[in-house]
Amino acid sequence: MSTSKHSIKLLGLNGNLPLAEKIAAKIGAPLLETSTRHFSDGEIQVNIDETIRGDDIYVIQSLQDPINENIMETLIVIDALRRASAHEINVVLPYFAYSRADRKTHSREPITAKLLANMIEEAGADRVITLDLHADQIQGFFDIPVDHLQAIPILAKYFISKRFEEEDIVIISPDHSGTKLARRFAEYFNAPIAIIDQRGPHYDTEAVKDVIGDVEGKKAIIVDDMIDTGVRFAYASKSLLAAGAKQIYAAATHALLSSGASDLLNEAPIEEIAVTDSIELPAEQYPEKIKRLSVDYLFANAIEHIYDKKSIHSVFEEQQKL
Amino acid sequence: MSTSKHSIKLLGLNGNLPLAEKIAAKIGAPLLETSTRHFSDGEIQVNIDETIRGDDIYVIQSLQDPINENIMETLIVIDALRRASAHEINVVLPYFAYSRADRKTHSREPITAKLLANMIEEAGADRVITLDLHADQIQGFFDIPVDHLQAIPILAKYFISKRFEEEDIVIISPDHSGTKLARRFAEYFNAPIAIIDQRGPHYDTEAVKDVIGDVEGKKAIIVDDMIDTGVRFAYASKSLLAAGAKQIYAAATHALLSSGASDLLNEAPIEEIAVTDSIELPAEQYPEKIKRLSVDYLFANAIEHIYDKKSIHSVFEEQQKL
Amino acid sequence: MSTSKHSIKLLGLNGNLPLAEKIAAKIGAPLLETSTRHFSDGEIQVNIDETIRGDDIYVIQSLQDPINENIMETLIVIDALRRASAHEINVVLPYFAYSRADRKTHSREPITAKLLANMIEEAGADRVITLDLHADQIQGFFDIPVDHLQAIPILAKYFISKRFEEEDIVIISPDHSGTKLARRFAEYFNAPIAIIDQRGPHYDTEAVKDVIGDVEGKKAIIVDDMIDTGVRFAYASKSLLAAGAKQIYAAATHALLSSGASDLLNEAPIEEIAVTDSIELPAEQYPEKIKRLSVDYLFANAIEHIYDKKSIHSVFEEQQKL
Amino acid sequence: MSTSKHSIKLLGLNGNLPLAEKIAAKIGAPLLETSTRHFSDGEIQVNIDETIRGDDIYVIQSLQDPINENIMETLIVIDALRRASAHEINVVLPYFAYSRADRKTHSREPITAKLLANMIEEAGADRVITLDLHADQIQGFFDIPVDHLQAIPILAKYFISKRFEEEDIVIISPDHSGTKLARRFAEYFNAPIAIIDQRGPHYDTEAVKDVIGDVEGKKAIIVDDMIDTGVRFAYASKSLLAAGAKQIYAAATHALLSSGASDLLNEAPIEEIAVTDSIELPAEQYPEKIKRLSVDYLFANAIEHIYDKKSIHSVFEEQQKL
Amino acid sequence: MSTSKHSIKLLGLNGNLPLAEKIAAKIGAPLLETSTRHFSDGEIQVNIDETIRGDDIYVIQSLQDPINENIMETLIVIDALRRASAHEINVVLPYFAYSRADRKTHSREPITAKLLANMIEEAGADRVITLDLHADQIQGFFDIPVDHLQAIPILAKYFISKRFEEEDIVIISPDHSGTKLARRFAEYFNAPIAIIDQRGPHYDTEAVKDVIGDVEGKKAIIVDDMIDTGVRFAYASKSLLAAGAKQIYAAATHALLSSGASDLLNEAPIEEIAVTDSIELPAEQYPEKIKRLSVDYLFANAIEHIYDKKSIHSVFEEQQKL
Amino acid sequence: MSTSKHSIKLLGLNGNLPLAEKIAAKIGAPLLETSTRHFSDGEIQVNIDETIRGDDIYVIQSLQDPINENIMETLIVIDALRRASAHEINVVLPYFAYSRADRKTHSREPITAKLLANMIEEAGADRVITLDLHADQIQGFFDIPVDHLQAIPILAKYFISKRFEEEDIVIISPDHSGTKLARRFAEYFNAPIAIIDQRGPHYDTEAVKDVIGDVEGKKAIIVDDMIDTGVRFAYASKSLLAAGAKQIYAAATHALLSSGASDLLNEAPIEEIAVTDSIELPAEQYPEKIKRLSVDYLFANAIEHIYDKKSIHSVFEEQQKL
Repeated sequence: MSTSKHSIKLLGLNGNLPLAEKIAAKIGAPLLETSTRHFSDGEIQVNIDETIRGDDIYVIQSLQDPINENIMETLIVIDALRRASAHEINVVLPYFAYSRADRKTHSREPITAKLLANMIEEAGADRVITLDLHADQIQGFFDIPVDHLQAIPILAKYFISKRFEEEDIVIISPDHSGTKLARRFAEYFNAPIAIIDQRGPHYDTEAVKDVIGDVEGKKAIIVDDMIDTGVRFAYASKSLLAAGAKQIYAAATHALLSSGASDLLNEAPIEEIAVTDSIELPAEQYPEKIKRLSVDYLFANAIEHIYDKKSIHSVFEEQQKL
Repeated sequence: MSTSKHSIKLLGLNGNLPLAEKIAAKIGAPLLETSTRHFSDGEIQVNIDETIRGDDIYVIQSLQDPINENIMETLIVIDALRRASAHEINVVLPYFAYSRADRKTHSREPITAKLLANMIEEAGADRVITLDLHADQIQGFFDIPVDHLQAIPILAKYFISKRFEEEDIVIISPDHSGTKLARRFAEYFNAPIAIIDQRGPHYDTEAVKDVIGDVEGKKAIIVDDMIDTGVRFAYASKSLLAAGAKQIYAAATHALLSSGASDLLNEAPIEEIAVTDSIELPAEQYPEKIKRLSVDYLFANAIEHIYDKKSIHSVFEEQQKL
Repeated sequence: MSTSKHSIKLLGLNGNLPLAEKIAAKIGAPLLETSTRHFSDGEIQVNIDETIRGDDIYVIQSLQDPINENIMETLIVIDALRRASAHEINVVLPYFAYSRADRKTHSREPITAKLLANMIEEAGADRVITLDLHADQIQGFFDIPVDHLQAIPILAKYFISKRFEEEDIVIISPDHSGTKLARRFAEYFNAPIAIIDQRGPHYDTEAVKDVIGDVEGKKAIIVDDMIDTGVRFAYASKSLLAAGAKQIYAAATHALLSSGASDLLNEAPIEEIAVTDSIELPAEQYPEKIKRLSVDYLFANAIEHIYDKKSIHSVFEEQQKL
Repeated sequence: MSTSKHSIKLLGLNGNLPLAEKIAAKIGAPLLETSTRHFSDGEIQVNIDETIRGDDIYVIQSLQDPINENIMETLIVIDALRRASAHEINVVLPYFAYSRADRKTHSREPITAKLLANMIEEAGADRVITLDLHADQIQGFFDIPVDHLQAIPILAKYFISKRFEEEDIVIISPDHSGTKLARRFAEYFNAPIAIIDQRGPHYDTEAVKDVIGDVEGKKAIIVDDMIDTGVRFAYASKSLLAAGAKQIYAAATHALLSSGASDLLNEAPIEEIAVTDSIELPAEQYPEKIKRLSVDYLFANAIEHIYDKKSIHSVFEEQQKL
Repeated sequence: MSTSKHSIKLLGLNGNLPLAEKIAAKIGAPLLETSTRHFSDGEIQVNIDETIRGDDIYVIQSLQDPINENIMETLIVIDALRRASAHEINVVLPYFAYSRADRKTHSREPITAKLLANMIEEAGADRVITLDLHADQIQGFFDIPVDHLQAIPILAKYFISKRFEEEDIVIISPDHSGTKLARRFAEYFNAPIAIIDQRGPHYDTEAVKDVIGDVEGKKAIIVDDMIDTGVRFAYASKSLLAAGAKQIYAAATHALLSSGASDLLNEAPIEEIAVTDSIELPAEQYPEKIKRLSVDYLFANAIEHIYDKKSIHSVFEEQQKL
Repeated sequence: MSTSKHSIKLLGLNGNLPLAEKIAAKIGAPLLETSTRHFSDGEIQVNIDETIRGDDIYVIQSLQDPINENIMETLIVIDALRRASAHEINVVLPYFAYSRADRKTHSREPITAKLLANMIEEAGADRVITLDLHADQIQGFFDIPVDHLQAIPILAKYFISKRFEEEDIVIISPDHSGTKLARRFAEYFNAPIAIIDQRGPHYDTEAVKDVIGDVEGKKAIIVDDMIDTGVRFAYASKSLLAAGAKQIYAAATHALLSSGASDLLNEAPIEEIAVTDSIELPAEQYPEKIKRLSVDYLFANAIEHIYDKKSIHSVFEEQQKL
C-alpha cells in the first residue's frame, strides 16, 4: 500500500458483512470499529468508534433485502462520515438495488435508480464502486466517478475450468433484453447464442416459450445479470429442454433468490447455477445446485488500485489472466 | 375550494392510510387511485393511476415504523410526481422520523433529520406540512416552506373538557429538555410546572427520580412530544407518585409505542394517556388507558388554506376557538 | 387551446426548421419571429423579436448534424428565454444527439448524453419532449420531466397499410442490443423475430453474418432506432438474403444517413426504407428507396396535451387508433 | 505541526482581533498580513498581502456587533480566498450571530441562522469551527463539517478552582429552555438545579418570578449560553434572592452585553459573572464584577488537531484533565 | 392592474423608504405592513404583518450606506418571504452596492458584486430589477432574470428642458472607463465628447489633468454612473476650466456623496449637478447645487409591466417620448 | 517541478494544438496520448490513452473557430476526466469565445459568456486559466478560481524593442469602450492616447471617423483585445491618416481574422500588426504585415506556478523584467 498521508479505512455495513470481511482480509486492513443499531421504533443509529478525520473511507454495503433499510443505513453513514471530515468517501456497492427501475415504462412511474444515485451523491459520496449494473447507463445517473466491475469473467472461468469450451455448447439469453450479455458471455467459449422468445405472461413458470436459434443436442448455459424469483430461469430451462437441449446450466452475478426461488430452481431442469457472493442470504434460501464464487479478490484489487491512484483497467487485465 | 386551474389531488401512502382517508373525507376529495407495492426482493413499486399533470398534490404519509420503508416510499412517490409534471408537490408528514437525530451529541454521529430533509428537497418536494417536530429548529433544515402545525391545543382541550383547569393541577416535564413544552401546555390551565430530574440511567423504569417543583397532593399531567418505549413516562409517573402526586395523567402528540411500551404503560400508575392519531398502530399495541384524538380536521383545514393561498395563521386562530 | 393566462409560443431553431413549421401548422400557431445568426468568427447570435415574458415556450430543435452547432444554439436560446422571464421552457427534441454515448464502454470515456442532459437542465429548461431515445434510461439522465414519444406505431402502421401483416413476415434486429425493439415492433404484426449475430468487424458492409432464428422464404423487416452510416443495414440485408429471406424492408425512426449512407443503401438488397422526418437532410442525401413519414401530428398533439395539462398517455392511445 | 505540503495560514478579521492574536500566539504562527478597509460609502475592501495558493486557511472572526458588517466581511474574505485558490477554508467563529433566529416562532419569520449558514457555505467555506451554539441543531444547518467546541468546562473549572463544589450550591436555569444546559453544568459540581419560571413580561428587570426547585440558603450559579441585555440575569438574581438564596453567581459563554447591560448587572445582586473572551468589547462596556476567561487555548488546540487530521475528541478529553 | 390570482404586494425596506413610498403611490398600492427592527446587539428582526402566501412580492431596497446592514436586511426579508410561501420574490434595487468590485484588479481580491448576486439568488429571489449598474456585465452575475433600467434619458431630458441642445456643448467622461457612457449621453444632444486623461493620483482634487478632445469655449456636462466622494468630479471640473470650458455641469444616476463630497462639490466650479433619488441621504449631505430627479415613475411603470407580463421594452419606448 | 504525489498531465485539444505543443515543450512534459474524433454524423468521440487517476490535468484549448465544436470538445473532455477520477481539472483557454456576449444590450438577448462559464463549471472544471478577456468582469462569471493572464506586456515589449518609446507616438483606442486598455498600453511608452469617435455605421470600412485627441505628425499604435473582421482597424487607420498621423501600427492579443479580414488589413494603411498565437489559423488567413508573438512561455510559466502552488503574481513580475 502507498504511504499516502490519507489513511485507508474500510467500513462494513449490514447488507453483506461476510463479503466486507473477506475483502478486508484480502486487503489486509481490518474493518473499522463501527456499529449501526436498529431501534425498536424503526430508526437506525450509527456509531463509528475510531477517528476518520482526513482518511479515505471505503464503505462496503450490498443493497440487498431489506433494501430500503440498507439504503438508509448507507446514506446515514455517508452523512456521518462527511460531517466527521473524511477526506474521500468511496461507496462500494456489490449489488445496486432498484437497478431495474432505470426508466419509465408507463406514465407516472418513478426512475428509482436515478433517485437512489441522486441520494447517494447528495449525501456526500465521492465515488461509487459497483458490479454488473442491470443497465450500463446507470453509470450516467451519477456525476461522480463510478468504477464498474464485472463478474462475467469469474463466471465464465468457472465453466471453462469444467472444460465446457471443449463441448458443443450454446449460451442462452432468457429474454430479449439480455441478448447482448449472452453474446459477451459466449465470446469466452467461442459459442453461438440463442434467445428465449418470452411473449406470454412472464410469471408463468410452466409455459414453454419459443427458442430463437439452435439448441438441439447442445449443452446450454442460461446467463443473466441477476436471478430474482427464478421464474425466468425456470421457464427458460423448460423451454430449452422442449427445444432439444441436452443439459442446462445457469449463470448470474446477483443471486437475489427472493420469494420461492429456491424451490422453483430446485425443481427446474438445471444442473448447476453459478452465482457470486455479491448478495448474502441465509443458507436455507439457496437451492442445492447453487455454486457461489467470491468477488472478494475483485473488489479488494479494485480498492487497492483506486487508493493507489492506479488505473482500474489493470484490474480487468489481470482478471483476464486468472 | 377555489376554482384554481391547478386541481387539488390527495395521495395517501402506506404509513398511516386511515388518517389520510379521514383527512380526505374532511376535505371532501377522494384519495388518488394509486398503489405502492412491495416486491419479494424488497423493492417498492409505485403506480399512480390517474393523470396528475399540472395538479397541486398533497402526499400524506406518516414516517412511522417501518420508518425506512416509509421514507423510501415517500421519496419514490415524489420522484414519480415530479417526472409526471405535477405543478406543486406538498408532502404532508403527520410524524417526521429521525427528529431526535437533529444534532451531533458524540463525535462522528450523523444528523439524520437533516439528511432526511435534504433527501425530501432533492427528490422534488415543494413544501412540507408537519406536526409538532421534536425540535422547532428542524424547520430550518429545509429551505422550502414548512408549515408546522401543533396538536398541543387539541390535547389541552381534551383535558379542559374534563374540567381539569378547575382543579389543583401541575404540568410535568419528564426530562430537562421538555421544560419549555410543559410551560406552554401549562398556560392552557394557568398551572405551575415541575420537572423530573432525570440523572441516573434513562432506561431504568423502576428508578425513582427527583422531582423539581411541588407536586404534593396535585393532579399531574406529564406532557411530551412523543411516547416511544414508554420508559420515560413510566419512571416519571412512579417518581411523581413517590413525590406525593394525587393522580397522574399523560399527553403526547406522537404515540410510537415501540417495543414493550404497551405493557409498561398499562402497569404504570397513569390514569389516562391522551395522544393523537399521527401514528397508526395495530390495535394490540395500544395500552388500554390510551385516548386517541384525531388531527384530521387540523390537517384538512391546513391543506385547504394552503391550496387557497390563505394564511395558515388563521388555522391556529380557529383552533383557539374550538 | 386553453384560455390559460400563460400564452403558448412556438420557436423553431435551425436543426430542422421544416418539421418545426409543420408542427406549428398542425397546432395553428405561428413560429415566433426569431433569428439565430452564425457570425463569421463562428459565434451564434440569437434575436427573439417578440416579447415572451410569462409565456409557455416550446423550442423545437433537432440535434442533427451539425450537432455541436445545434446543441449550442439550443443552449443559447434557453439562456435567452430564461433571462427574458419565460414562464415555462419546453425543449422539443425530435432527435437527441449523443444518445449512443450513454455509458462508459472503455476506461476514461465520457458519458456525453448525460453531459448534454446536464447542460440542458443547467441552462434553464423546464421539460424535454423527445422521440425514441437510443436507450430508455436516458430519461433518467434528467431530473426535469421528459415526455418520451414513440414513432414505432407510425412505422408499423405504414407497413400494415401495405397489408404486410397478412403475409409470412419476420422482424429483424440488426444486432444484439436491438432485440427488444424488434420484439415490440413484431407485436404489431403478430410476427416472429430473428437476430443478426454481429460478431466480426462491424464496419464491413460485405460480410455475411449468422442469422439467429428462421427467415427462410419470409418477408423481413429490419428495425432499429436509427440509420447512421447504413453499414449495419447493409450487412443485415445481405445476411438475410444469404439466409433465404424472400424480400427485405427496413424501418428506423431517425435517418441520420451520414457519410456514404445513401449509396450504401441504394446498393443494398432492400426494397424500401421507412423513416420519419425527425431529421431533415438535403434531398441528395436520401436514397431513392426511402419513405419519410411525418411525426408532425405526434408532436403537435403532445404539445397541445402538455400545454392543456392533459395526460400524454391519451396521445399514445389516440395513436393506437390511427 | 505536521510537514503537510498544504501550509497552515491564520487570518484574523475585525470582529475580535485580540482573540485571533492570542490564538495565533498559542499556535506559534503569525496572522496573515491582511487588511480589510471600510470605505466612506460603506463598502468593505479586502487586501490579502501574502500568497495563500494551496494553503489551509483558518479565518478567525467573531460575529459580534456590528454583526452585519462582520458577516459581510467574513463572506467577502471567503470569496477572495476561494478565488485565490486556497486549498481549504476553515471559518473559526467563536461567536455565531443570529443563533436565536433558529426557528419560526411566528408566521412569516425568517430563520436567519439557517440563512447565515447557507451564505457561509455558498461563499465557499469548507468547515466551520464554533463555540457553544445557542441550539445544537444549528450544526445541522450546515452540510459541511462543523466542529463544535464547548466553554462549559472552562467556566465550571473556574468555580471549582474557588472550591464551590465543596459548598451547598445549586445551578440555576434563568428560563425554561436552559434547563438542559443547567443540568449539564451541575454535573461538574454534583449539584441540584432550579429553574426561574419566567411567565410575565420578559423585559421587566424588577419583577420577581417563581423559582421551581429549592434554593433556600444555597449558593446559586445562574448559567446560560449568553448574556445579551442582562435583563434575564437581573430578574433571575432578584428572584433567587427573594427565594432565599444565600449568594448568587453567574456564568455564560458569550458576553454580548448590549444596550445598558453593564449598569443592569452592576446593580443586580450578583457577586461575580464568569464569561469567555469569545466577544471583545470596549473596556467600559464590562461591568466591574465580570471575570473573562480565555478560549484561546481551546481554539488553538482544535485548529492544530484539525490541521493534523487528529480527532477533535481528544481536545475535549484533554480539556477534562485541565 | 391585471386580475391575476397572484396579488401584487409591495414591501419597502429601510435603505430608501421615501422612494419606495413614491413608487407605491404611483402604482396605487400601499406598502405592505412590515417592520424590520435593529436590536441592541446588532441583529435585525423582520416582522411582516400581512399574509403574503401565493402573492407576487416586490421588495424595494436601495443598497446604500449602511450598505452591509441593508444587504443583510434584504437577504433576511427574502428568506422570510420564501419560507412564508410567496409566489414570486422580485427584488427592486435602485442602487446595487459593491458594483465596482466586479473584477479582480489585484491578486487575492474578492469579486464582491458576484458574491452579492450569489447571496441574493441563494436566499430565494426570483428576479432583480435595478438601475444603471456600474458595469452591464453584472447582469450576467445572475442566472435569474435581471430587468436593467436606465436613468440616462431622465438626466438628459432635464438638460434638454433647459435647451442645452441648442448651445455649443460637449459631454465629458471624467475618466477612461466612462467614455462609452459619455458617448451614449452625447447622442441626446448630438454633441461631441471629451475625456479627462486621469493619470496622476486619483485622490488629488486640486490636480489639473489633460483633457483629450476639444472643450474650448463650450458648455461641458460631466457624466458618470455615480458620484461617490466627488473627487473625480472636482478635478474634472477644474481641468475643464483650465482647458477653456465656458461653463460646467454634471450628471450622475447614483448620488452616494460619501465622506466630504458635499463640501468638495460646493467648492468645485460646477453650476449644477443633476442626479436621481436612487439613494436617499439626510438633507445636509446634499450640496446646494444639486438637482434630484425622481425615478419613481420609471420603477412603478416597470413593476406594472412585469406584473402584467408585458415587455419591459415598452417602458424604454415610453420613456423616449417623455 | 515539484515532487507532489499528484502528477501533472498536459492535454492538448484541437482548437490550437501547435500552441499546446509549444507550452508542453516549455514545461518539458509531453502532451497526454489522446485523440478526439469527429464522426461522420457530427458527434465527437474522446479517447484518453493513459491513466489520469489522481493526476492534476491541464487541458489546453483555444475556443476559436469552429467555436461550438471546440466548446463541446472541451466539455466532453472535462466530463471524461471527471468520470476517470482526475484530481484537479484545469482548463487552459488562451482564447475565451463569446466574450463579447457578456451582457444584454437588447431585450431577450442571451449572455452567452455566462452560459459558457456555467457549462464549464457544471461539467467539472476546477480552475480556468485564460488570457485578456474582453471584459475583466467575465472572471466573476465563474465561482471557481480564474487565473487571468495578460499579453499586453508582450505586445508592448515588441514595440519597445523597436525603440518606439523614443519617438513621438500616440496610442489609439479604435472605439469608446477600449479607452482604458489604450491608457494601460500607453503607460509602457509614457505616451498620450486618442480615441476614434465611432458613431456612424460600424461596418463601413471606408468611412472616416472623428478622432478625439491629437495625432498630428505622430506614430500611432491602435490597440484592442482582438481583431475579428478587421473593419474597426481598417476605418481607424484611415481616420488616423486623415487626421494627420505619420505612420500607423496595430496591436491586439487575439487574431480571429474572420471573414475577409486578411484582405481588409492588407489594404489598410497599417505598417505592421502585432498579435499573439492565442489563435491558430491556416497560413493563408494571415495578412502579410502580421507579426505573431508567442504566449507559450507565459502559459508554461503560469501552469508551473499553479502546479507548484506558488503565487501567479510572480509570473506578472517576471514578465515585467523580460
